Amino acid sequence: MAAAALLLMAAMAHAQSQGLPSWNDGPAKQAILKFVADVTSPGAATFIPPAERIAVFDNDGTLWAEQPIYFQFAFALDRVKALAPKHPEWKTTPPFSAILKGDMKGFAASGEKGVMQVLAATHAGMTTEEFTETAAQWLANARHPRFKRPYTELVYQPMLELLAYLRENGFKTFIVSGGGVEFMRVFTEKAYGIPPEQVVGSTGQLAFRMGGDGKPVLMRLAKIDLVDDGPGKPVGIQRFIGRRPIFAFGNSDGDQQMLEWTAAGSGPRFMGIVHHTDADREYAYDRTSHIGKLDKALDEATARAWTVVDMKRDWNRVFSFDK
Amino acid sequence: MAAAALLLMAAMAHAQSQGLPSWNDGPAKQAILKFVADVTSPGAATFIPPAERIAVFDNDGTLWAEQPIYFQFAFALDRVKALAPKHPEWKTTPPFSAILKGDMKGFAASGEKGVMQVLAATHAGMTTEEFTETAAQWLANARHPRFKRPYTELVYQPMLELLAYLRENGFKTFIVSGGGVEFMRVFTEKAYGIPPEQVVGSTGQLAFRMGGDGKPVLMRLAKIDLVDDGPGKPVGIQRFIGRRPIFAFGNSDGDQQMLEWTAAGSGPRFMGIVHHTDADREYAYDRTSHIGKLDKALDEATARAWTVVDMKRDWNRVFSFDK
Repeated sequence: MAAAALLLMAAMAHAQSQGLPSWNDGPAKQAILKFVADVTSPGAATFIPPAERIAVFDNDGTLWAEQPIYFQFAFALDRVKALAPKHPEWKTTPPFSAILKGDMKGFAASGEKGVMQVLAATHAGMTTEEFTETAAQWLANARHPRFKRPYTELVYQPMLELLAYLRENGFKTFIVSGGGVEFMRVFTEKAYGIPPEQVVGSTGQLAFRMGGDGKPVLMRLAKIDLVDDGPGKPVGIQRFIGRRPIFAFGNSDGDQQMLEWTAAGSGPRFMGIVHHTDADREYAYDRTSHIGKLDKALDEATARAWTVVDMKRDWNRVFSFDK
Repeated sequence: MAAAALLLMAAMAHAQSQGLPSWNDGPAKQAILKFVADVTSPGAATFIPPAERIAVFDNDGTLWAEQPIYFQFAFALDRVKALAPKHPEWKTTPPFSAILKGDMKGFAASGEKGVMQVLAATHAGMTTEEFTETAAQWLANARHPRFKRPYTELVYQPMLELLAYLRENGFKTFIVSGGGVEFMRVFTEKAYGIPPEQVVGSTGQLAFRMGGDGKPVLMRLAKIDLVDDGPGKPVGIQRFIGRRPIFAFGNSDGDQQMLEWTAAGSGPRFMGIVHHTDADREYAYDRTSHIGKLDKALDEATARAWTVVDMKRDWNRVFSFDK
């Protein structure tokens, strides 16, 4: 009931957006307004029925921030620290030993194998309900190192307005993210008004087990099912949604194939990229960043005239707490 | 546009259902009406907010018929015949040789391996769009051997009314079926008013490929991703929907875990089973059937007082074409 009340408040907040007030007048805002007008004008050659108005959004770096590290990875590191007392062997076992010493360079040296070990230790071996509860607790208590606020406050106000605007115009909004689907579903309904069944993400394998009390549980296994990033994004879209989007927004090379898949359909299409250009209010990074690298997709966006949002130029507010 | 018009007509047909006219007054209908009244009465202790009113339905044997063989398997057999001229080696290669001779006993002897070979030959090695087009063509032209009608007419009229009734009461209706998700999505919107993004089914792996024309495609690989049957159904529900249903309907032991998963949540729950008891109007089968075997789930339904629909007793019409 509390969740429902919060959802209602979020929905009301969205409904009050009245267009896109946090977007400056410019080519990005104009492109959005024109596209929505085109596909919603009855009788126009560009009209698209509501059922086909599928809009997909990357999450990290597109709907909320992703620096200095992906927020889900901050969760994983905090879980390693919280679980360490139960794993005395971690003190001397890489990559855990590096994390516990705060030696992020040492951890980075463990590469993909190290990341997978951390994910296995922090994201698997519990029921889906236990994981959800743990993630919810963390989101309620953790604070972003620079902004000193809960991570869920680091959502982009202009994108909230865009989500609401699209829904007001008959679009169905989905997240299609490399993040873990069960991690995202903890906050997407409250933060974005996007219900769990409209969140597509990376998935691990699950196993149905009948508990001793006759109540079944789903155990999270340390085995990846889908990495919903790069070429995995069109796969995730096809598997979960089963329709090609007409509107897609990303911010990195991991979104390139999702944008290409969206662009390849017939009729009107909107492809957008958030370009992080604002080190004062948020962060500035693109071609050489380790997180949210935007290089090839930026070239393709330029070549194909996709909409590139220049955060500094196009957004008069980044976060809802900005003046 | 044509699809949208058909969808609109289907939606109007549903809206005219006015309750459950094809259901006889009896314990099954009463249980449905009571459950819906309980969860939709504002202020009642049993009230459930619309966002949480998730209803899941098995497809084969629950929403449409499944005898004498699963309809998707009839499609696969027809595809073997249609593709045979391109595969002269099939004349002498089991299991294809048995199928081409109409020797179903010989084919059955090839077991699960034979089935997988047929699925690989007929369901993989093409793009998702090619597969969808092939399935749509087949559904338009194939006829059921007994009823001499398109397979999509063999949907159960009482279940169409139930789907519409639930939606009118704020439920979101999903299919959760062992059938292939891309096969079902061809017809579920028109047949049931259930859009592609609310269809959960078995999935094969997909690969993103950039075509020579610069247009990407998704290739269907001959590798299973999820078998959405038995214990795979709660896994599919968690992966795709991310919420526990409050209402579930199945008809076979393959639905048992989905019903158990639904039952294990807190608050009001509805678990229903279609029992095929009507050889005159449809089919009569349960504990010993090779297709749609209903044995353990029937015992559990009895023990736990789930709702068992006796097709002969509870439905005054089975198909829309019945007098």
